Amino acid sequence: MVLVSPRNPLNIGATARAMANFGFSHLSVVAPYEAHWREAQSAIGAEELLQNAKRTESLAEAVADCTLVVGTGTLARRKAEQPVVSLPELGGRAGSELARGGRIALVFGSEKRGLTREDLSYCHLLAVIPTDPQQPSMNLGQAVAVCLYELTARGESHAGLSGKSAADFVPPLATSGEIDRLAAVIEGVMLAASYSPAEMRAANRHDLRLLLRRLEINEADARRALGLFRRVLHKIGN
Amino acid sequence: MVLVSPRNPLNIGATARAMANFGFSHLSVVAPYEAHWREAQSAIGAEELLQNAKRTESLAEAVADCTLVVGTGTLARRKAEQPVVSLPELGGRAGSELARGGRIALVFGSEKRGLTREDLSYCHLLAVIPTDPQQPSMNLGQAVAVCLYELTARGESHAGLSGKSAADFVPPLATSGEIDRLAAVIEGVMLAASYSPAEMRAANRHDLRLLLRRLEINEADARRALGLFRRVLHKIGN
Repeated sequence: MVLVSPRNPLNIGATARAMANFGFSHLSVVAPYEAHWREAQSAIGAEELLQNAKRTESLAEAVADCTLVVGTGTLARRKAEQPVVSLPELGGRAGSELARGGRIALVFGSEKRGLTREDLSYCHLLAVIPTDPQQPSMNLGQAVAVCLYELTARGESHAGLSGKSAADFVPPLATSGEIDRLAAVIEGVMLAASYSPAEMRAANRHDLRLLLRRLEINEADARRALGLFRRVLHKIGN
Repeated sequence: MVLVSPRNPLNIGATARAMANFGFSHLSVVAPYEAHWREAQSAIGAEELLQNAKRTESLAEAVADCTLVVGTGTLARRKAEQPVVSLPELGGRAGSELARGGRIALVFGSEKRGLTREDLSYCHLLAVIPTDPQQPSMNLGQAVAVCLYELTARGESHAGLSGKSAADFVPPLATSGEIDRLAAVIEGVMLAASYSPAEMRAANRHDLRLLLRRLEINEADARRALGLFRRVLHKIGN
């Protein structure tokens, strides 16, 4: 991750926070504004990776050991001179680069001007976040978060490792038999409550069967519903 | 987009900025901290959508017209009571809900506590951003940006892949408000039927709220169920 001449200490801090969130640790800053950079580094709760950031005077130096340099920005003000990819397309490209042992740099320009034409000349690709044309320009910290999300969180699912989608436990659905038992009790309640005329009975039963299956009710919920309707039936019966 | 008790005006501003970036315009705030909310609204360069934000005292009210309510957060402190999806998986799900004419609410808790158990009981799903276990907790403005990126920028490419035809029309889900009305009548039936002891009432109400959302009941079915339970209530009442 490379920030070129970042200005706002809050944005620098937010960049570091997003990097920590998505498991990145190598930050380089190119020609930062001295006072702002120091302020960001000394902020309460500043990420450790800010302390360890590599500082260079030129972008060339910062990305010297990377095999794929990806600039970020909008196309509002210039015609790109290198291939442009939409951010959602970057994941696959980055994944194959990493798979073959490459190192990727993601480069963000200053809040005010973005990356200059000179900066961009060090980039293999320009990645564009698809934003609304009415308000295309993103806050730096948010743009960083979105890009790192694409490269990691999405990256994993590209690779088919949706992995730690924690507690993916889904309880089993009720069996058809359990649903039919529930349907029978509900039908009993409908009758006891004079829900509809007798000649509707067959139609109602049919609809109820469909309805309960549409709900894709799980086993435990079916049991709960059964308990409630039995109780109701008992109450109406008396 | 719903913010519950947001605190930091900068985060509120960042949320609005990300919404503008990704083309969203409907913001609701639930029980905001008065001074901070006013500060955010009056900030220089504040997005217009902050002026037009809907303000409510409860989350139930804020999401009453939505058919799919998605809470956000981590699983660090609690066990989820509803299905959990990893954010990358949410895009497709949200896309199909929109395709059948539903309205989605994305709900973010306060910076300090996130969403409470009570808040979450109004959510059909909990979406988790896959972050590094070492630093799982994201800044609010950045989390919002990442979620909206997934829903729009990525969403487009999902839609491009799945090529939906108008033929697979699925009726929209019941709105959160319709579900709450149904829940109220069912609760009435439970009471009238002496389903469980009085001291269980709050817990039952909580469970019922979750259960009805788990069912993903559609509008027409919710109406049918409402009719039945009203009828039952009437019958038991007499």
